[in-house]
Amino acid sequence: MEKKELLYEGKAKRVYGTDEKDLVIQEFKDDATAFNGEKKGTIVGKGVVNNKITSILFKLLEENGVHTHLVEVLDDRNMLIKKVEIVKLEVIIRNIAAGSFSKRYGVEEGVVFDSPTIEFSYKEDALGDPLLNDYHALALKLATKEEIEKIKNYAFKINEILKKYFDDRNVILVDFKLEFGRTSDGEIILADEISPDTCRFWDKKTKEKLDKDRFRRNLGNVESAYKEMLKRLS
Amino acid sequence: MEKKELLYEGKAKRVYGTDEKDLVIQEFKDDATAFNGEKKGTIVGKGVVNNKITSILFKLLEENGVHTHLVEVLDDRNMLIKKVEIVKLEVIIRNIAAGSFSKRYGVEEGVVFDSPTIEFSYKEDALGDPLLNDYHALALKLATKEEIEKIKNYAFKINEILKKYFDDRNVILVDFKLEFGRTSDGEIILADEISPDTCRFWDKKTKEKLDKDRFRRNLGNVESAYKEMLKRLS
Repeated sequence: MEKKELLYEGKAKRVYGTDEKDLVIQEFKDDATAFNGEKKGTIVGKGVVNNKITSILFKLLEENGVHTHLVEVLDDRNMLIKKVEIVKLEVIIRNIAAGSFSKRYGVEEGVVFDSPTIEFSYKEDALGDPLLNDYHALALKLATKEEIEKIKNYAFKINEILKKYFDDRNVILVDFKLEFGRTSDGEIILADEISPDTCRFWDKKTKEKLDKDRFRRNLGNVESAYKEMLKRLS
Repeated sequence: MEKKELLYEGKAKRVYGTDEKDLVIQEFKDDATAFNGEKKGTIVGKGVVNNKITSILFKLLEENGVHTHLVEVLDDRNMLIKKVEIVKLEVIIRNIAAGSFSKRYGVEEGVVFDSPTIEFSYKEDALGDPLLNDYHALALKLATKEEIEKIKNYAFKINEILKKYFDDRNVILVDFKLEFGRTSDGEIILADEISPDTCRFWDKKTKEKLDKDRFRRNLGNVESAYKEMLKRLS
């Protein structure tokens, strides 16, 4: 499958058209950003790792009944995916307090919730991706009630599958972000990526961070953390 | 009923103990603050107006099946209320986009929603009363699932009652904030106040603002707007 025109360039990925109208190619870059684009950098080899990790996890989810945009991995940095219209909601599942949750609500990092939380952000860079709830999402016409229900059910199901999967690999799944898309048939499927860019992973024994927080917080060993995560999944 | 010790002083009210352990006195001040306390001022006579408006509206709500903390009005600035433990959730119902909603989500003021929205803020000045959703409220143990359901049902019911009531008085109820409390029996009842401090009121014909936005935005005629609202309700 050959790359045609560039359709979209985001912070960490590019999307290209193909000869097939319902298929596009997602290319993973090494560019890294944080704090809504205020911090910028490069994590060498990140694109290759995230392409591989995303493909492993999306295949796992497909096997467990979650429909995703993945069609096939083309090479180190490129995957063929179904073309979707991205739902403008960033979906965040949290099992343990960390990051913006801890800052926003004054809760120490590491506090384990009785039940996972879900939250939506309005995917709109110019507004700083503000938090919103179901009622806001409906008022802003970002999704229908049925779509929001479907997305929530998928998100909690994905959390259960991934928590177990990572636990078996001595990794704690602290929190993660998902994005969903609408296919040309109007079906809601999982899109974007699942990788150390979009999840918080802590080593089960040492609690060492194995994710983008190493970049966000200048903790060093960024590249090796990404590689370690790939190693544990391979 | 005599005022005993000062139990609590907030931005717009003081609460005093009484001889009865389950009863306290709520005194309405003229102090006004906005933007999480950054802007401070005085609105002469506000306390008197808000005491009266709150008592009118709480009586209306009681007649319609909403339990409130109001026992009786004592004088111009004081009302006798049931002692409650305030639930640390500020509950905001919106019928029309305005204020922080418009700023946060980039929506022009005045856009009418298909259905009212509800949102919770974590009542914690030090954190700037951040927005949160049901899952966050549960994770932070601010209320039980049953209490959150009760609060939501009450809030939407109050909106229906008040929208109609204000419409009959040529006022549009744009949005408003509620606070709820737990009685010593664990019952959830409406607490705090409902007044031009806690609602956005627009004149139905002219769309003139008749609420605290006149103070927040330096629009002038603050006192007369509060008095006009009381006049329409009397």
